[in-house]
Amino acid sequence: MAEKGRISVNTENIFPIIKKFLYSDHDIFLRELVANAVDATQKLQKLSSMGQYDGELGELAIRVAVDKDAKTITISDSGIGMTEEEVKKYINQVAFSGATEFVEKFKDVDTTNIIGKFGLGFYSAFMVSDKVELITKSYQDAPAVKWSCDGSTEFEIESADKTDRGTDIVLHINEDSQEFLEEHRISEILNRYMKFMPVPVIFGKETITEGEGDDKTEIEQEKVINNTTPLWARDPQELKDEDYLNFYRELYPMSEEPMFWIHLNVDYPFNLTGILYFPKVKNDITLHKDKIQLYSRQVFITDNVEDIVPEFLRLMHGVIDSPDIPLNVSRSYLQSDAQVKKISNYITRKVGDRLNELFNKEREDYQKKWESIGLFVKYGMMTDDKFFDKAKKFCLLTNTEGEFFTIEEYKAKIEANQLDKNDNYVFIYTSDEAGQHSFIEGAKRKGYDVLKMDTMIDNHFIGNIEHKLEKIQMKRVDADIAEKLVETDEKTESVLTEDEQNKVIEVYKKALGNENLELKVEALSADEMPVTIVRPEFMRRMQEMAEMQGGGMGMFGMNMPGSQNIVINGNHELVSRILKAEDEAEASKLVRHTYDLAMLSQGMLKGEDLTKFVKRSLDLV
Amino acid sequence: MAEKGRISVNTENIFPIIKKFLYSDHDIFLRELVANAVDATQKLQKLSSMGQYDGELGELAIRVAVDKDAKTITISDSGIGMTEEEVKKYINQVAFSGATEFVEKFKDVDTTNIIGKFGLGFYSAFMVSDKVELITKSYQDAPAVKWSCDGSTEFEIESADKTDRGTDIVLHINEDSQEFLEEHRISEILNRYMKFMPVPVIFGKETITEGEGDDKTEIEQEKVINNTTPLWARDPQELKDEDYLNFYRELYPMSEEPMFWIHLNVDYPFNLTGILYFPKVKNDITLHKDKIQLYSRQVFITDNVEDIVPEFLRLMHGVIDSPDIPLNVSRSYLQSDAQVKKISNYITRKVGDRLNELFNKEREDYQKKWESIGLFVKYGMMTDDKFFDKAKKFCLLTNTEGEFFTIEEYKAKIEANQLDKNDNYVFIYTSDEAGQHSFIEGAKRKGYDVLKMDTMIDNHFIGNIEHKLEKIQMKRVDADIAEKLVETDEKTESVLTEDEQNKVIEVYKKALGNENLELKVEALSADEMPVTIVRPEFMRRMQEMAEMQGGGMGMFGMNMPGSQNIVINGNHELVSRILKAEDEAEASKLVRHTYDLAMLSQGMLKGEDLTKFVKRSLDLV
Repeated sequence: MAEKGRISVNTENIFPIIKKFLYSDHDIFLRELVANAVDATQKLQKLSSMGQYDGELGELAIRVAVDKDAKTITISDSGIGMTEEEVKKYINQVAFSGATEFVEKFKDVDTTNIIGKFGLGFYSAFMVSDKVELITKSYQDAPAVKWSCDGSTEFEIESADKTDRGTDIVLHINEDSQEFLEEHRISEILNRYMKFMPVPVIFGKETITEGEGDDKTEIEQEKVINNTTPLWARDPQELKDEDYLNFYRELYPMSEEPMFWIHLNVDYPFNLTGILYFPKVKNDITLHKDKIQLYSRQVFITDNVEDIVPEFLRLMHGVIDSPDIPLNVSRSYLQSDAQVKKISNYITRKVGDRLNELFNKEREDYQKKWESIGLFVKYGMMTDDKFFDKAKKFCLLTNTEGEFFTIEEYKAKIEANQLDKNDNYVFIYTSDEAGQHSFIEGAKRKGYDVLKMDTMIDNHFIGNIEHKLEKIQMKRVDADIAEKLVETDEKTESVLTEDEQNKVIEVYKKALGNENLELKVEALSADEMPVTIVRPEFMRRMQEMAEMQGGGMGMFGMNMPGSQNIVINGNHELVSRILKAEDEAEASKLVRHTYDLAMLSQGMLKGEDLTKFVKRSLDLV
Repeated sequence: MAEKGRISVNTENIFPIIKKFLYSDHDIFLRELVANAVDATQKLQKLSSMGQYDGELGELAIRVAVDKDAKTITISDSGIGMTEEEVKKYINQVAFSGATEFVEKFKDVDTTNIIGKFGLGFYSAFMVSDKVELITKSYQDAPAVKWSCDGSTEFEIESADKTDRGTDIVLHINEDSQEFLEEHRISEILNRYMKFMPVPVIFGKETITEGEGDDKTEIEQEKVINNTTPLWARDPQELKDEDYLNFYRELYPMSEEPMFWIHLNVDYPFNLTGILYFPKVKNDITLHKDKIQLYSRQVFITDNVEDIVPEFLRLMHGVIDSPDIPLNVSRSYLQSDAQVKKISNYITRKVGDRLNELFNKEREDYQKKWESIGLFVKYGMMTDDKFFDKAKKFCLLTNTEGEFFTIEEYKAKIEANQLDKNDNYVFIYTSDEAGQHSFIEGAKRKGYDVLKMDTMIDNHFIGNIEHKLEKIQMKRVDADIAEKLVETDEKTESVLTEDEQNKVIEVYKKALGNENLELKVEALSADEMPVTIVRPEFMRRMQEMAEMQGGGMGMFGMNMPGSQNIVINGNHELVSRILKAEDEAEASKLVRHTYDLAMLSQGMLKGEDLTKFVKRSLDLV
């Protein structure tokens, strides 16, 4: 016959787990205990508003006091309190979440303001205490009671003479945790976790000056450390821009003002409020990253929102408050949580909507801020296909003239002149306006428009655009000579005979002392450069990729086959002179000069070659 | 009178905590259960070796079997087993670690091989199961017993007809966890966590071919998935280089061979074994980072060794095995753990010793590998003062001739020629051999040696050397004209009168159209360049810092006051011609040419200025 039974839990082994496993930072004890006090206070308010309690509410603040001599920290509230029976039930049975039962009992009324996620919170007190005392008097007519425990599983309970409603928790701080008896340490923790808690928290005193001149008196008064109605918890309708900017300054003192913001506010299918700001993004993006603060019902949880906020939005600043995000849970668990995914999608959608709105209503302003906004938009488009579909309508392209276009606008602009023989739109871009100046000039002479694609992200964004949109080909302005950037079926007539072309190539190879150079002769305008070095798009990207991976192909260096072609202008006067030169030294000098100038234009003349070129140039004068 | 009592733990709330809080990855269940099976097997071996068990040990493998139809996973061992009494004690009381008691009982013998960190491990089975059955027969003469539980806190216990010693655990996989019924998924988990467990783990079958030709037969046999005596657990004395290289290939297939390695082995004051490899480091260091695997008694824990291995050594590869590193504990807790700090210091010390040994015994080989080694050494010196003191003896400097020096050797080398008037050793360096070629040539003409400081880390390392070592001044080769790199009391005689000098400066300012240029005339050799642009060390570093921070000073760009000085060579023929030129256009042309060539030598001639220069240079021919 099967025997039935009940699994029991050995408490002696549970305490170490609570101490070590659940909470990594010891300073969390204060957050947990103050959060419990807030909970007790809000329960009382709820009962009162429902007519279940008709006593005076009085002042409902929470007090934190440090007694350095006695080595104690005391947290006091005037909340709901507990009867002896309740102490036995809630305190003596670990992991029995009082809030759960409370919510169960009053589930038809709005209980979303009850902090109740911290079932085990009270026990975190033992992380820092040798002994914990709890003196409490219920709002119901019952005698006060004092519970105490020295961190073992043995507790004592006795009657107490407390006459006012509420709970005092006295922590006798242990040897290892004396740091928490320093006022500045407690201030720091309160400021970190309790800055926006919904019930006033009082710690320390401040001096207020009243009157003026002879009437001036200094009054010492208790100091409330928190703002109980932070901006994100207020109605967006009644807030002005200045309110948002002030709140930003409060969150990030010393920072530049943000560009714009989004007030998040959703009840279903999850509960989330918050304000997200778009900062002006500077060169070093890591400086801006991961400054979003996560709260749960106005209690600070963490500033690591990885996995809650999509990667590409982690440059944003601000606050997210949601009781629906699992707390104290390891990160890899979050990744697979369906609720978290919904929240992440919601934030992405709201950001997309806001950008779309800005683009449609205030395009000029939007364009001014594009340098910073573009970073979010492009990164988002690359990592999130849904966002790509939305953002392709408000993603902007800039050209070297400083004009802005949406992708569709740009296609319309270049349709007449930059469609190749396969009806591909050829988007010509520069990754370095100064470095590719002569090529940009060349393209402009052909009537082409040149886009600026010079941020770190553009390098990857280029491939993304080609991949996700049809009939667009991106070509860097030095991918070929201007005449060939947009491929047509037209053939250019060569003025040199094939023999002459071959001879030119031979002379160049010999004079440059390199048989492996990839040279060809083209018939260009006599005004164009005698020699141009071009870097074919595909091979150049391959090479860049290989270099980025620091891998095998790096050994080819700049000389990876096909990564650079030397184009000789058969119509240039100097090329004719080279062909006709009778003195080999003279031809060789001209070859070197024209080649060096081409290398210079590509920013590739370096080291000894450059030093020699400079010397020769001095001698020319 | 005070009433006393005992805190009880409500198990209904404990299960969700185990499920959600303790384990983030669901696949950990298999690690925990197999680790328990290893534990049971090793206990039996221990008892046998102590003469407390004289039965046959038999085959002591652990078997993992998946039954896709029945939707079960079964883990079987032939270990110590449990009596009914033990099941009630170990299984029904959560958090009562069986291993603890075992260790307690036999504490005078060596028990370090007992996996016993996972007190709650068994319950992780409920993360993936609707129902768990445990059928077990003790090594002692007692009837077999079957325990089952459906994930609530109710269990059933009954007698079973199992006749062989050991424990079978049958998991009835729940709806959400069907993925674990796929063989490849189980293979993957076993391969990740159990690859080096100390008892054979059998999963699936493999086909072995025996004989040849007509005699060839294929035999299906059980497949052992683990290597029970991994290299790090073996005696370094009996291992050859090839063993270490083979193990590296096993850990990181497809990777280039490591440069060298360290076999870690310490018993006191903590227990740690492991092998750390120095890889050849390529451009993109993030590719190499965080590949160290952390084990606890041959059970894989994580490959995130942040906070255990010092930051600068996280580029190393390999394995660390220590039962003394707290597991499942959040990262910020680790940071303050004294044991972890000791381990981290130990690893740093061992790495320092090994590098020192290589340097002393195989200096030539050490120099060959310096490009990769230098990264560790310099990073370590910058972040760890103790390591700095050790490493300054084997940290190498390379010069443009490809020679290597220790810091002391280098001081001796340059003592005759590069001591300034304050007896500072002036270390002249280049950050870009190609880009600063003409400056390097200039310094060499003065008889100076030029160091190569061109890696990303050198930029920071330079300041660190100056800061921590006395009487060393680092100067980039373009910080001043060669004549002034090493400051002496000697004054250079100017051939131009002060009036002439002022006139030259006026002409340059006017021709270049910029009144704010910082120009001065020096009397250099007539062979030197007519104009040189230098970038004073201190101001250049300030500017680089400002640029890196992407902050406020960026607006000054290249024109931050004092960040570049233009030095005119009063003795150069072209400067004389400029002074004497009667035609202003002629003078202006020469000014532009000499200035552009100086800009070119500094790699600063860009954009339109470069395009114009190239055109003018074509016309010169």
